[in-house]
Amino acid sequence: MTTKRIAGEEIERLIQVLARLPGLGPRSARRAALALIKKREQLLAPLAAAAADAAAKVKVCRTCGSVDTIDPCAICADPRREPGALVVVEDVADLWALERSGAVKCRYHVLGGTLSPLDGIGPSDLNIASLVDRVAVSKGEIAEVILAVNATVEGQTTAHYVADQLASTGAKVTRLAHGVPVGGELDYLDEGTLAAAIKSRSGL
Amino acid sequence: MTTKRIAGEEIERLIQVLARLPGLGPRSARRAALALIKKREQLLAPLAAAAADAAAKVKVCRTCGSVDTIDPCAICADPRREPGALVVVEDVADLWALERSGAVKCRYHVLGGTLSPLDGIGPSDLNIASLVDRVAVSKGEIAEVILAVNATVEGQTTAHYVADQLASTGAKVTRLAHGVPVGGELDYLDEGTLAAAIKSRSGL
Repeated sequence: MTTKRIAGEEIERLIQVLARLPGLGPRSARRAALALIKKREQLLAPLAAAAADAAAKVKVCRTCGSVDTIDPCAICADPRREPGALVVVEDVADLWALERSGAVKCRYHVLGGTLSPLDGIGPSDLNIASLVDRVAVSKGEIAEVILAVNATVEGQTTAHYVADQLASTGAKVTRLAHGVPVGGELDYLDEGTLAAAIKSRSGL
Repeated sequence: MTTKRIAGEEIERLIQVLARLPGLGPRSARRAALALIKKREQLLAPLAAAAADAAAKVKVCRTCGSVDTIDPCAICADPRREPGALVVVEDVADLWALERSGAVKCRYHVLGGTLSPLDGIGPSDLNIASLVDRVAVSKGEIAEVILAVNATVEGQTTAHYVADQLASTGAKVTRLAHGVPVGGELDYLDEGTLAAAIKSRSGL
């Protein structure tokens, strides 16, 4: 930093760390830091404690690759989860989104990203081998693998690669339906989505 | 929270604290928490340390009302600041913005908000009495008070009230110029700004 000192060193450092969070630029990091400082007891001290606690406790689940404070994670350890299927997601954020929907009754596998040769991300950088292993050692118990990857080029490329790798396990590989988002207006949707919604139409 | 547990308690608490920062909603707080967790050593631990340090060190300057890690703050304590004028701002964020501009050579006084009868914020809730005192005890050394408040209704109302209170001190009270922002396009500016820019035009 070559800019001149405006506030104390500790304040500047807090701003710099906040500015590295996704969604916060330099200006909003300063706003956030000021809000924290103004509410020291209600906000700044709890943030320090929460960040320290999380840093001490967070673990990556060795089974599915998700994050939790226990390993295996609460979902992998939950005996009520249906063992017959596995939902494959790119990222923990997608897992959290699906959990909020309440639509997933089985467990997950987190790839940790998508294949991206231009960024140097190949199959060995993702949790693909551990997925194939997990399905294989289940000896048919995991009968279906649902590829819940993003509907982007990278997501779909990764899905095809993962499906190829899973072929030897004999598990059925499925993907999420394309269609009109609930509450969505046709006029604002792209042609690809509309074409998919027409093609996959269902009886009323 | 009645939503079901998705991640560990410490992770949920971190998300909840982050969601209370300005500029971060529930979704972006989750994204930020995940980014922190994924970069535990580079981001989460430094955030915990920076927040704890700031919580321990931050002080409000008893002279000007700004925040710093020393009291009086570095600006009030700086002997190179011109003593003949004082810039009055609503908030510490405005002070920081003016400092970044490098255009202020004197010291500041932070009001801590604007008059807002509907929100129950009266003159006694702002640092107005301390401003009048500060100007009065300088016995004429502070010859000018520059009201650098926001060009909003609340800011202007507050400016008029502050100017009235300062009348007895004999200090000259000025305000920021209205006009076209540097780099601004006329087509996108409101009529009030354009009228002010025409009225306050200057020779080339």
